[in-house]
Amino acid sequence: MLKITTVVACKNWAKGQVAFVPTMGALHAGHVSLINLAKKTADKVIVSIFVNPEQFGPNEDFVSYPRQLEQDLLLLEQVGVDAVFIPDNNEIYPLKNKYKITPNCLADDLCGKFRPGHFSGVSTVVLKLLNCIKPDFLVLGAKDYQQVVIVKNLIRDFLLDCKVVIAPIAREDNGLAMSSRNAYLDIRDRDNARHLYKALQSIKSLITQGENVNKACEKYKNYLIKYGYRLDYLLVRNADDLSNNLSDNLVILVAAWLGSVRLIDNLVCRR
Amino acid sequence: MLKITTVVACKNWAKGQVAFVPTMGALHAGHVSLINLAKKTADKVIVSIFVNPEQFGPNEDFVSYPRQLEQDLLLLEQVGVDAVFIPDNNEIYPLKNKYKITPNCLADDLCGKFRPGHFSGVSTVVLKLLNCIKPDFLVLGAKDYQQVVIVKNLIRDFLLDCKVVIAPIAREDNGLAMSSRNAYLDIRDRDNARHLYKALQSIKSLITQGENVNKACEKYKNYLIKYGYRLDYLLVRNADDLSNNLSDNLVILVAAWLGSVRLIDNLVCRR
Repeated sequence: MLKITTVVACKNWAKGQVAFVPTMGALHAGHVSLINLAKKTADKVIVSIFVNPEQFGPNEDFVSYPRQLEQDLLLLEQVGVDAVFIPDNNEIYPLKNKYKITPNCLADDLCGKFRPGHFSGVSTVVLKLLNCIKPDFLVLGAKDYQQVVIVKNLIRDFLLDCKVVIAPIAREDNGLAMSSRNAYLDIRDRDNARHLYKALQSIKSLITQGENVNKACEKYKNYLIKYGYRLDYLLVRNADDLSNNLSDNLVILVAAWLGSVRLIDNLVCRR
Repeated sequence: MLKITTVVACKNWAKGQVAFVPTMGALHAGHVSLINLAKKTADKVIVSIFVNPEQFGPNEDFVSYPRQLEQDLLLLEQVGVDAVFIPDNNEIYPLKNKYKITPNCLADDLCGKFRPGHFSGVSTVVLKLLNCIKPDFLVLGAKDYQQVVIVKNLIRDFLLDCKVVIAPIAREDNGLAMSSRNAYLDIRDRDNARHLYKALQSIKSLITQGENVNKACEKYKNYLIKYGYRLDYLLVRNADDLSNNLSDNLVILVAAWLGSVRLIDNLVCRR
């Protein structure tokens, strides 16, 4: 496996069809499922590990975000990726006065409402990585549903050719969506974490039976609060564009705190 | 000459070394000098004609901006460019909820102070055009000095390989920097327009003789006002980064209104 640390080396690398899996490291089985999908999609697979400071708010967990590079590299070697891109901040942000991408209105909606600047940081780093790697395919996880929609639009709006491939959410045995931040959960919260996916499944079941969308959500807000969750949001949106235009193709979206950990999850639901 | 109107066709076109000259049409001898420099720089030359709505303020001249496509195409054919890219708005802005690039602090400085959003619009369209054409060289005119600095930084910050080539300012016989907007000048203003470059030359002469930079500018502010100019700014900056850190390498910058026309000009000055 080739280890690339500079933008120049990275650009020189890619020939042939390339699938790219961007990560912030602290790799888990969810990332492995993305990589396996990438391997099915293209001849060559490159993974980036870059904890992007610009997508963390001032009160967020940039400093404490789990970093375990040696372990990650071992995993990537085992899974069989072709290259890993591990740039430092100076490679990705060569200028002090940074240029930023401001995404459309979705940036201040849903998670963006609770994490100001987050999707601007995500959009900016994704465009930089795409410019650098020029992949044919970008593989993203469905857990970050809003991120997927914003990045898809970003690629379309900036006239890039890269095709976005979505990997389904990888879940623990108890249903909890895999995330690097799950490592922060204490034992009690780890048990309670199963209720998040349970709530989504129950809401989906109610909606497909014809229940009113808002009523279904309200019912399971109370359910989650009972198990110690503090909700940022639990709601239903249009699955295609995340608008409030509720067609047949819906997505149930949740973001909630359990102890010191912010969990997000979602479930697509046709009615 | 190939006429390309879609992003897809444009991307398929470029093979080999390509120099790109972005324009808003209404081509004049200044553009021709850019094209000639592009021809010296690379094997193939592509010119874009796109009056970018996003870089005009709500009270600016987007609607009345001179458009003369047939005449422009004839000129490009004569000058001998290889391709012209003439996209419509839907090609460049495929999404209604547009993503925008916010440049660093320079965006609200100098011309940005008087044209809010202008450099965000310029940065966004330039990045789109670069993504689309993927040129090896981008040829810009030195008249838009601030634009050159912002675009250079944009390319560096977004990790693109494109090299920026600067063409010196093309001037009328009387010294007026060539601009599509000069066509708006009435006869009397057209005569007075020569004083703008005269003022820059005189300030440069004073500075190289050791005169204080601010005093030199103040003197010629009054000179220009006498000839009917309404000044947005006349000042001296660091020629490398447009900061107020006045080293040996300076640039004298001016933006001023003559009748209904906003003129800009600049002159580099070493001391």
